[in-house]
Amino acid sequence: MMRCRVAIAGFGGVGSAVATLLLSRRERFIRLYGKDVRLVAVCGSRAGTSNPSGLENEDLKTLDPGSSGADFLLSSGADVLIEAGPTDFRTGAPGLDYIKSFLSAGRDAVVVSKGALVHSGRELRHLARQTGATLRISGATGAALPNIDLLEHALQGCSILQIEGILNATTNYLLDAMITDGTSFPDALAHAQVAGFAEADPRYDVEGWDTACKMLLLANFALDADLMIDDITVDGIQNVTSAMIDEWRQSRQVPKLVGRLWYEEACPRIRVGIEALSVDDLLAQVRGKNKAIRISTDTMGEITTFGCGTEPTATAAAALKDLERILASRTASVS
Amino acid sequence: MMRCRVAIAGFGGVGSAVATLLLSRRERFIRLYGKDVRLVAVCGSRAGTSNPSGLENEDLKTLDPGSSGADFLLSSGADVLIEAGPTDFRTGAPGLDYIKSFLSAGRDAVVVSKGALVHSGRELRHLARQTGATLRISGATGAALPNIDLLEHALQGCSILQIEGILNATTNYLLDAMITDGTSFPDALAHAQVAGFAEADPRYDVEGWDTACKMLLLANFALDADLMIDDITVDGIQNVTSAMIDEWRQSRQVPKLVGRLWYEEACPRIRVGIEALSVDDLLAQVRGKNKAIRISTDTMGEITTFGCGTEPTATAAAALKDLERILASRTASVS
Repeated sequence: MMRCRVAIAGFGGVGSAVATLLLSRRERFIRLYGKDVRLVAVCGSRAGTSNPSGLENEDLKTLDPGSSGADFLLSSGADVLIEAGPTDFRTGAPGLDYIKSFLSAGRDAVVVSKGALVHSGRELRHLARQTGATLRISGATGAALPNIDLLEHALQGCSILQIEGILNATTNYLLDAMITDGTSFPDALAHAQVAGFAEADPRYDVEGWDTACKMLLLANFALDADLMIDDITVDGIQNVTSAMIDEWRQSRQVPKLVGRLWYEEACPRIRVGIEALSVDDLLAQVRGKNKAIRISTDTMGEITTFGCGTEPTATAAAALKDLERILASRTASVS
Repeated sequence: MMRCRVAIAGFGGVGSAVATLLLSRRERFIRLYGKDVRLVAVCGSRAGTSNPSGLENEDLKTLDPGSSGADFLLSSGADVLIEAGPTDFRTGAPGLDYIKSFLSAGRDAVVVSKGALVHSGRELRHLARQTGATLRISGATGAALPNIDLLEHALQGCSILQIEGILNATTNYLLDAMITDGTSFPDALAHAQVAGFAEADPRYDVEGWDTACKMLLLANFALDADLMIDDITVDGIQNVTSAMIDEWRQSRQVPKLVGRLWYEEACPRIRVGIEALSVDDLLAQVRGKNKAIRISTDTMGEITTFGCGTEPTATAAAALKDLERILASRTASVS
């Protein structure tokens, strides 16, 4: 039977969930694709473990210090990299090196972290085309919310006129708490941090950068645009005051952090900022940590999709969806 | 350049819209797939026209009596049939013959009409597998609402736990009018018939059969079930009284005609009937002639998609999405 060797870079919540789910689906992969999928390496930023015959769940409990980095991952013999590490969209590090090394070698990459894709998306796509490798990013643009699939597949043939995305769980949770309970921004944030819904340093989410990165990836990967992060006008929710909340409530409006893409003379433009939606607007119904995207087209009208998966499983499932497409399309190495 | 010849059976609103859209996208097909797509035949139940070099818009204005039927379509030399005729799910006629003749000859079929698929779905799928032909049905299960794509593609790898579909525009329009304006069922129906939103014989929609057929196709084609229409418990909206409407309004509930699929001991079950949803339920937000589907999964949580395309263009666009997948995958005949 054909064998497909997988390495996971980044072994936090999502990486661990990918490993668990992958190991639990081995019979499925054999049945549907005739591929014997082996997890041959996992690593975080400082430690990892590998086994060319395949790791099992119990092998993942202790990682070896120093077993990490691009050379470690490549030398594991993996055919496919699943990259789910920490993300820095201003440098692309550390995932960028790993992804480049795999794509350069003609091996496939499933990328969950946005940093490298935002920083060097064009270079990575070019590299993949050159070597014939596959680069897939379903997990990077909204976890289980199938944004890329809608644009690339479900709406195939349509012209996309506009996209509105509520793509960041933290800010939606905070705005929802403020509007529903009248909580102040600092109180809502402190509560979300205690409950684990917001990072200790919440700026990436709260200032709109996470939404901006996701919108950028949708534009560049699904709509063949070539935008840079600094092309996007980005406002967050950090300056929302109680007075603003009161005003929205009184006027029966619902504030949402919206990433909006539209076209000006055939060029895509993106902005991220608070939009006060009518309570009757479908997008005003996005509650708590859920997400949604509304896509306007020329011939299929508007499609609006809501997602509410439980993390990190939902993101891991999105990454494994990408893996299945690789299994379906690619002749993996023979054992 | 490779040529791909297309025939359209059923030349009412949807069939005409397919022709118009197909002819307008010829440059796109060449650019993306390197295929010169020619519309070589169209026919209704009694008349049609064909030209092996390709029909243009002006050729479609007058149809020749007698140019119709399976032999006419096959002899046009078409590589792909797009079937969009009238539908009878108790007999499959007349589309069933056309689809069978194409699939038997190893030619592809894009089917918009539900009748043949409901009546003989298993036989048609088997036939396509035998001859290596492609059978695609995106337009048959909810027009532009990408039900099949969600199940087959966006949720790939998930176990589907439950599906709830509001899939019939007419009944949703009627229930919405009754709840919003307090109109009685006969008055709402009469108004919808005058406005063209309901058929002169509305039983197929109003009694729930259209929803049942769509749910059956989702189960059989996307979830590999093998259900018959008589396996489904079907109730419609024809017995809704003003007293029931009053009661729902007073209890802040919203009645919707829901097609519900669930599993009992790994076997799929479907029922169609009115469900009184809480006003806070996302599916209660489906307005007028719109549609929606909510899919519950094991690992990606719930995905809910709303669609509101304008007919017949949206259904035609769904059929052409299927055609594009055939163009992408198949080596068409060489001119």
